[in-house]
Amino acid sequence: MPLYSQDQINLIATKIKDVRFGMFTTTDDENVLTSRPLTSQQIDNEGNMWFFTSDEAAFTLHLAHHAQVNVSFSNPEQNLYLSVSGRAYLLRDRAKARELWNPLARTWFPAGLDDPHLALIRMRIESAEYWDASASKMKQLFHL
Amino acid sequence: MPLYSQDQINLIATKIKDVRFGMFTTTDDENVLTSRPLTSQQIDNEGNMWFFTSDEAAFTLHLAHHAQVNVSFSNPEQNLYLSVSGRAYLLRDRAKARELWNPLARTWFPAGLDDPHLALIRMRIESAEYWDASASKMKQLFHL
Ligand SMILES: Cc1cc2nc3c(=O)[nH]c(=O)nc-3n(C[C@H](O)[C@H](O)[C@H](O)COP(=O)(O)O)c2cc1C
Repeated sequence: MPLYSQDQINLIATKIKDVRFGMFTTTDDENVLTSRPLTSQQIDNEGNMWFFTSDEAAFTLHLAHHAQVNVSFSNPEQNLYLSVSGRAYLLRDRAKARELWNPLARTWFPAGLDDPHLALIRMRIESAEYWDASASKMKQLFHL
Repeated sequence: MPLYSQDQINLIATKIKDVRFGMFTTTDDENVLTSRPLTSQQIDNEGNMWFFTSDEAAFTLHLAHHAQVNVSFSNPEQNLYLSVSGRAYLLRDRAKARELWNPLARTWFPAGLDDPHLALIRMRIESAEYWDASASKMKQLFHL
């Protein structure tokens, strides 16, 4: 039974359509918060957001102890800001990687699906909020 | 004795010159990470980034127990991404508020300096990283 209505998923997907690069914030073992750009590949029907990552990227180690993450999408040109909170897991799933593979991903993974360090992040979305042209007003997309 | 060279401060200031709206990520008491757009007002000579906020904004309550925050700046048009980590403190300092006051701030604080809920966030920068047109390469600005 899905926890999300298809409408909620579609709304997030619509918001980030033109801003696929999110800043993905994690907490390390010293409780320091750092972020880095990651490309959102898909929002699936169960409310997971998917990313490609290298399992050699230092921040992926944070996820084991600190699954709670935030990914924010900003588009100053469109005056659109989106905050997505949830739990993230590092996965190695060749079938899913193949499903998500696209030419843009080659920028970070020149060896493509053959890269032994190519991994996936599955982020289970738990809440989302956005700010748009009316700027000062926050809209809660949903909260589980 | 300043912990930062003027060069380091200037470099961050230059990077965010055209992207003053950062996504400011905090941790709440349930360890959930949320973010919201905040306008960076100044980076002072001691390496603090300053923001205006309302002391009624729920996230300002997070700071008392979770000073560690991240603020990320994204400009997809310029292909510039910046992550700034540090500790943030909520302050009520009328003199500093007056120093930082500017017409843009009126968007969020129509009553201006007379708004009884107008407060400041002083974020002590501890590390910063950026990604620019060379996309896949991360540059460490500095790390204390
Ligand atoms: C716009 C942009 C999008 C990016 N997207 C991805 C991505 O989808 N997957 C990835 O592994 N790296 C991506 N990168 C590179 C990572 O941000 C980063 O360099 C790498 O994860 C290093 O992380 P670390 O410094 O925490 O180790 C992207 C970089 C930019 C500038």
